[in-house]
Amino acid sequence: MSTTRQIDVAQLVTAYTATRQATEQLCAPLVTEDYVIQAMPDVSPTKWHIAHVTWFFETFLLKPHLPGYEPIDPQYDYLFNSYYNAIGPQYDRPSRGLLSRPTVAEVYAYRAHVDRAMLVLLEGASEAQMAEVGPAVTLGINHEQQHQELLLTDIKYNLSINPLRPAYHGVELPRRRSAPLAWHDHDGGTVEVGHDGSGFSFDNESPRHEALLQPYRIASRPVTCGEYAAFVDDGGYTRPDLWLSAGWGTVQAEGWEAPLYWERIDGGWWVFTLSGMLRLDEHAPVCHLSYVEADAYARWAGKRLPTEQEWEHAAAGAPLGGNLAESGLFQPVAPGENGAGLRQLYGDVWEWTQSAYLAYPGFAPPAGALGEYNGKFMVGQMVLRGGSCVTPESHIRATYRNFFHPADRWQFQGLRLAADA
Amino acid sequence: MSTTRQIDVAQLVTAYTATRQATEQLCAPLVTEDYVIQAMPDVSPTKWHIAHVTWFFETFLLKPHLPGYEPIDPQYDYLFNSYYNAIGPQYDRPSRGLLSRPTVAEVYAYRAHVDRAMLVLLEGASEAQMAEVGPAVTLGINHEQQHQELLLTDIKYNLSINPLRPAYHGVELPRRRSAPLAWHDHDGGTVEVGHDGSGFSFDNESPRHEALLQPYRIASRPVTCGEYAAFVDDGGYTRPDLWLSAGWGTVQAEGWEAPLYWERIDGGWWVFTLSGMLRLDEHAPVCHLSYVEADAYARWAGKRLPTEQEWEHAAAGAPLGGNLAESGLFQPVAPGENGAGLRQLYGDVWEWTQSAYLAYPGFAPPAGALGEYNGKFMVGQMVLRGGSCVTPESHIRATYRNFFHPADRWQFQGLRLAADA
Amino acid sequence: MSTTRQIDVAQLVTAYTATRQATEQLCAPLVTEDYVIQAMPDVSPTKWHIAHVTWFFETFLLKPHLPGYEPIDPQYDYLFNSYYNAIGPQYDRPSRGLLSRPTVAEVYAYRAHVDRAMLVLLEGASEAQMAEVGPAVTLGINHEQQHQELLLTDIKYNLSINPLRPAYHGVELPRRRSAPLAWHDHDGGTVEVGHDGSGFSFDNESPRHEALLQPYRIASRPVTCGEYAAFVDDGGYTRPDLWLSAGWGTVQAEGWEAPLYWERIDGGWWVFTLSGMLRLDEHAPVCHLSYVEADAYARWAGKRLPTEQEWEHAAAGAPLGGNLAESGLFQPVAPGENGAGLRQLYGDVWEWTQSAYLAYPGFAPPAGALGEYNGKFMVGQMVLRGGSCVTPESHIRATYRNFFHPADRWQFQGLRLAADA
Amino acid sequence: MSTTRQIDVAQLVTAYTATRQATEQLCAPLVTEDYVIQAMPDVSPTKWHIAHVTWFFETFLLKPHLPGYEPIDPQYDYLFNSYYNAIGPQYDRPSRGLLSRPTVAEVYAYRAHVDRAMLVLLEGASEAQMAEVGPAVTLGINHEQQHQELLLTDIKYNLSINPLRPAYHGVELPRRRSAPLAWHDHDGGTVEVGHDGSGFSFDNESPRHEALLQPYRIASRPVTCGEYAAFVDDGGYTRPDLWLSAGWGTVQAEGWEAPLYWERIDGGWWVFTLSGMLRLDEHAPVCHLSYVEADAYARWAGKRLPTEQEWEHAAAGAPLGGNLAESGLFQPVAPGENGAGLRQLYGDVWEWTQSAYLAYPGFAPPAGALGEYNGKFMVGQMVLRGGSCVTPESHIRATYRNFFHPADRWQFQGLRLAADA
Repeated sequence: MSTTRQIDVAQLVTAYTATRQATEQLCAPLVTEDYVIQAMPDVSPTKWHIAHVTWFFETFLLKPHLPGYEPIDPQYDYLFNSYYNAIGPQYDRPSRGLLSRPTVAEVYAYRAHVDRAMLVLLEGASEAQMAEVGPAVTLGINHEQQHQELLLTDIKYNLSINPLRPAYHGVELPRRRSAPLAWHDHDGGTVEVGHDGSGFSFDNESPRHEALLQPYRIASRPVTCGEYAAFVDDGGYTRPDLWLSAGWGTVQAEGWEAPLYWERIDGGWWVFTLSGMLRLDEHAPVCHLSYVEADAYARWAGKRLPTEQEWEHAAAGAPLGGNLAESGLFQPVAPGENGAGLRQLYGDVWEWTQSAYLAYPGFAPPAGALGEYNGKFMVGQMVLRGGSCVTPESHIRATYRNFFHPADRWQFQGLRLAADA
Repeated sequence: MSTTRQIDVAQLVTAYTATRQATEQLCAPLVTEDYVIQAMPDVSPTKWHIAHVTWFFETFLLKPHLPGYEPIDPQYDYLFNSYYNAIGPQYDRPSRGLLSRPTVAEVYAYRAHVDRAMLVLLEGASEAQMAEVGPAVTLGINHEQQHQELLLTDIKYNLSINPLRPAYHGVELPRRRSAPLAWHDHDGGTVEVGHDGSGFSFDNESPRHEALLQPYRIASRPVTCGEYAAFVDDGGYTRPDLWLSAGWGTVQAEGWEAPLYWERIDGGWWVFTLSGMLRLDEHAPVCHLSYVEADAYARWAGKRLPTEQEWEHAAAGAPLGGNLAESGLFQPVAPGENGAGLRQLYGDVWEWTQSAYLAYPGFAPPAGALGEYNGKFMVGQMVLRGGSCVTPESHIRATYRNFFHPADRWQFQGLRLAADA
Repeated sequence: MSTTRQIDVAQLVTAYTATRQATEQLCAPLVTEDYVIQAMPDVSPTKWHIAHVTWFFETFLLKPHLPGYEPIDPQYDYLFNSYYNAIGPQYDRPSRGLLSRPTVAEVYAYRAHVDRAMLVLLEGASEAQMAEVGPAVTLGINHEQQHQELLLTDIKYNLSINPLRPAYHGVELPRRRSAPLAWHDHDGGTVEVGHDGSGFSFDNESPRHEALLQPYRIASRPVTCGEYAAFVDDGGYTRPDLWLSAGWGTVQAEGWEAPLYWERIDGGWWVFTLSGMLRLDEHAPVCHLSYVEADAYARWAGKRLPTEQEWEHAAAGAPLGGNLAESGLFQPVAPGENGAGLRQLYGDVWEWTQSAYLAYPGFAPPAGALGEYNGKFMVGQMVLRGGSCVTPESHIRATYRNFFHPADRWQFQGLRLAADA
Repeated sequence: MSTTRQIDVAQLVTAYTATRQATEQLCAPLVTEDYVIQAMPDVSPTKWHIAHVTWFFETFLLKPHLPGYEPIDPQYDYLFNSYYNAIGPQYDRPSRGLLSRPTVAEVYAYRAHVDRAMLVLLEGASEAQMAEVGPAVTLGINHEQQHQELLLTDIKYNLSINPLRPAYHGVELPRRRSAPLAWHDHDGGTVEVGHDGSGFSFDNESPRHEALLQPYRIASRPVTCGEYAAFVDDGGYTRPDLWLSAGWGTVQAEGWEAPLYWERIDGGWWVFTLSGMLRLDEHAPVCHLSYVEADAYARWAGKRLPTEQEWEHAAAGAPLGGNLAESGLFQPVAPGENGAGLRQLYGDVWEWTQSAYLAYPGFAPPAGALGEYNGKFMVGQMVLRGGSCVTPESHIRATYRNFFHPADRWQFQGLRLAADA
């Protein structure tokens, strides 16, 4: 038994250490100045991300469970709390980019301080303690993985608005063909969705429950940049009949003419990527679409978005893999023409569904501050599924529910078409 | 056969005339100045409402179907089109209250002009024409009924911000007791929801389809002002743990401390009504709540809001009636202690559900401009059910889906609790 | 002696009554709806103007000086106080157009109520009382004359934003030629400016004091629409080198391409006037210019604006007259080619000077609430001189200092060029 | 003759080099992150300042005068042009803090690149060339000195909003007494003001001209923090009668209760300084006041602000010196009780005058881009005189006109009282 515990602890320590290192690895290409900026309210400075995930372990593990733990600075509680009202007040979110201190070096020192204490905690925890500590550490690891993704989406946005269009890294992207679009039919009926409790999941994936589906079809792959360019060329951004009313309002107010990061240069489309400005790859999945753009495209194509239940049912049993963060590309690419079944379910782009982000029947968030993790965002957002090219592979699964506002588009968001069968 | 047609036409003429007169009757208590103002972007001037519903008949009936019809003023198309992009551009919505012309008298002349032409159209329509004209007239009548409700909610808001707190009418409100709260259990399972096609319905109520419900309980009546006041007194508006994140943001930004129209005067609660300022009636259903307030109350009460499918299933077969517009009270009141079953399902207050306003499976809006009626609003809003004290009785039914944004509260919106069984 | 007093009182009663009637006469062309609206924060509803000037007499005459005076409604103090903090709080200025009550009829009843009481006060005042009452009544009369002008500038703006472009009245405007521009030279030196104390003046015109002028030249007439159109045609609104930095910012932010009320229709310039839309009169003085436009034009013309001291010195001794409110045109027009000296000094358009609106040396506002009349606005505004086509003749004089913000242009504002000699 | 030129060039090189080094010296206490941030639109990142002053030399010296000069990056023209429309478009000013690149190191490399080229230019310039190059270099040096001051005021603001309140440096401030307030009388009359052409001056100080002054008195020293605290304690920020209307609006809108950087901690006043948070020094000149606060204080004290002509006339002949940048304190302090005449005319705090920033009679800006340096800001701002504790001594003189908007207060701005004699 103690052996099991030791194995468990060892596994946890390994996972913890690997996750912490992965985060820092993602920052390796950055210069100090890149850590500081916040180019719009929705994004956070890199510095804030790597401090906040540290604060998470400090707040939910070290303070309650490691006697004698000494915080490096009591004000970090205020600076690096994201939105946990049960913990205390928070520094103004849109102003995170106005802080030069603590410095990047100080934040790394904060990380090291917490890492040392975490190892003390984990290695000294009794079996009884581990029952409580273990799940919280696992949550902290998954939380940090979420911020690894956000760190990249945010630094992409932060660099993109710079007239110099600096690249994050020099990785070269493969140019492959995408397969022709095919359709997969499903009978519908009463199916089970939601997480079954084996392994880690977020509270919003539970409880597993029955859902009733009408017969439907789902596309074999996401919509490509080439297909989306046809929509743009067909006047997609000038025809109100294709848009939800709120979406059309945004198109007008923001002057949208194409997805985020597309630029028309000398008559051709270029896109800003973490590898810098590149010519549009027509075979790659279209990316950085808002919900209202995905919806408008589907209407133009005579199709619709899938519901999240349809998506999950179609994905059930499909192997997990694809262009995820481990590929190191950090940009959606075509997988090549060969392949069967539903392709690119995981990785490349988060796929918008037509489902609002709401509680599953019987959903109950945990008590206390961690109950604020997911549940309090259940209004006004839409569900996305499948992970993206900046999602770690160990982080994603078929039941995973991501969620963003209908006009958000700085995440790696695309779409897969569906239709009534 | 022609007899049938004549009867149909006669019925339609009667319904048309009655609806048009009802609208004007609602305006009887107003002075000219009241027709002009717009106290916030979401409301429209009374003058605009009574012109817009007229424009609807002109646009969708007279112009396409009455040869030789002459509009009174070609610019009315621009001024009184609400949001139909397929018809043409629209005058800026938040600026509707900046127009003194056309005058109220001119708008009434516009109404009379269109009414005369409508009678010519209806009385001269062939049976074949009636197949097309009839449904459009019915839609126009239902549309005007919606604006009768909006006209009252908007004039209530417009008068409320005036420091003089002018009353719309002098109607005295009955003060009755409400019954104690009871719970009604439902087994769940696969049930049918949506409109079955008999009689008029809006496109968003279709198609009728199966839905899967978990066992649930629903309250016998809406939450009362007295019950809600207990939530307020318990610090409901100061505890972030009770609120959705977006709701808490609104509470902070807007300084909300109670429902719209509640004022604390000399230590007691008063409410602004269309009958002027009145002492809070603790037995009346609580009203003018946003979704986030309804949700916060439910969380405080250890319950939840029903889904729209739960609400509709529970309401199926219940008799239609209650404190609707015909009562002339235009304010929610308690029905008295006696009564069985689910009470106040219809009338008094629209009841927030926890369902986002989205397309039913298989939903397809009609082609053309009328496809913009409902479908293009299917993002970011929540469904309400049951009608209110300003809804005409002939307008409401169990399948009716009303929808507003989560922070809206100038409609007559309340809530009925539900729970897992 | 008492005869003198009676004559004075009689004169005051005549002036009071004439002014009050003149205000109401200006409203004669309006329909009720016109009284209510407020098309931007800077303008006030007509209804508010005619109530506010009444409140002025009530507040500064009746309440302190007429024992037993009963206000019609105690809340009018809050609604119709413009900016006198010493009197009490004020209803939010940009929201004046959101009030339907008191109605127009009620406001006229308020006027009549105050008029009756004013006559009681004036006719019963002792000689001693008149020493205090008389100057305050005179101030109230001049105050009401200012609002006669604002009432017209505001209703012009309010009607102008209506797509129907309704005319205020049907007056036909004379089309005459303007004389060629000539220059009048002045030696400068030490001159006297400011009011000499004979007759009424506002506090900001005092004390009369010496000013030192360099030799200068001033134009014989204001700049005409034709001259200004040449500036527009020469790319005046597209060349930042012609503009003050703040002005260029406004041009960009507001999309200005011409003076307020100019519209390019089928290639030609039209202007909105109180007589409706008219073809641009090239000989009429250009009007509805902001300071920054006047300044940009002068720079383009290789000239400058006069200082207020230069203007006043040049105007000293010139006969008072011109196209003022009494002409009933309410639009600047050309005076014809014949005439000598500085023409159109009074009437037509207020003339921007390059002087900031600041205290004269030794300026001291009166104690109490009336000290707020002018003095507290002495920052951030520029001085205009000469009155306009909507200024009553008895209201204007050479020492009169009007003032507006550099970007304001809804007043009848034009310019007269000056230069160093 | 060539010797003279060589001396001139040598002096210019010395001045150039000293100024450039002084700028970099000011940055020595900063960490990389401090260079990046922009805590409000009015301030600029340190990185931007040190690049912009470099751009100034590149644009006005190297590009026109050094054949074969190669810019480091053509996009710097866009990024580091502040407001010279004649040069080209400019990167959005409020977004300067959103750029992580070029990095701080790259900006220093840019400085070094330009410095090398400048020395080549200066050392190779013929006498004829020097006639043109010399004045432009001198302007560039004075321009960089202005930005040395702004660099410090901006970094102070940037650090101040950080909850950690980081200090810029560890300099300890002397605590000395201030002398009692005395009054100096002046007769007024016709006096000369403006720069006489000997040595460098900005265009806005010319031409020297006569001005007419009334007899006046001026205070022997600026208002102290202790005196200002008495105004605060007397309810200065709660009494609208003391304020200009625009100022009172700002007090209400911004919630001002004291000067910028004052914080009430445990009942006592503390101030944020470049040496960190310090207890208020009652003897030091009050600082970080807007014009409207200085004006309100003067009204409360029964006095007024001086005009800029009064200030300059009073300062004429006074020795130049005081707590200027060279003292290295970067915070106003009391000079001690001993001393005669007008004290602290130079250094400590810029002194608000009641004069609007307008053109002197006969003012003509130079042709071309450099004409944009000062002239285009001549509306809506007020003049300040005397320099501050962050102004280099070689930069200030009696005729120097600084100017800011009436609500600005992040500069080292204070006041000296005046009165009519």
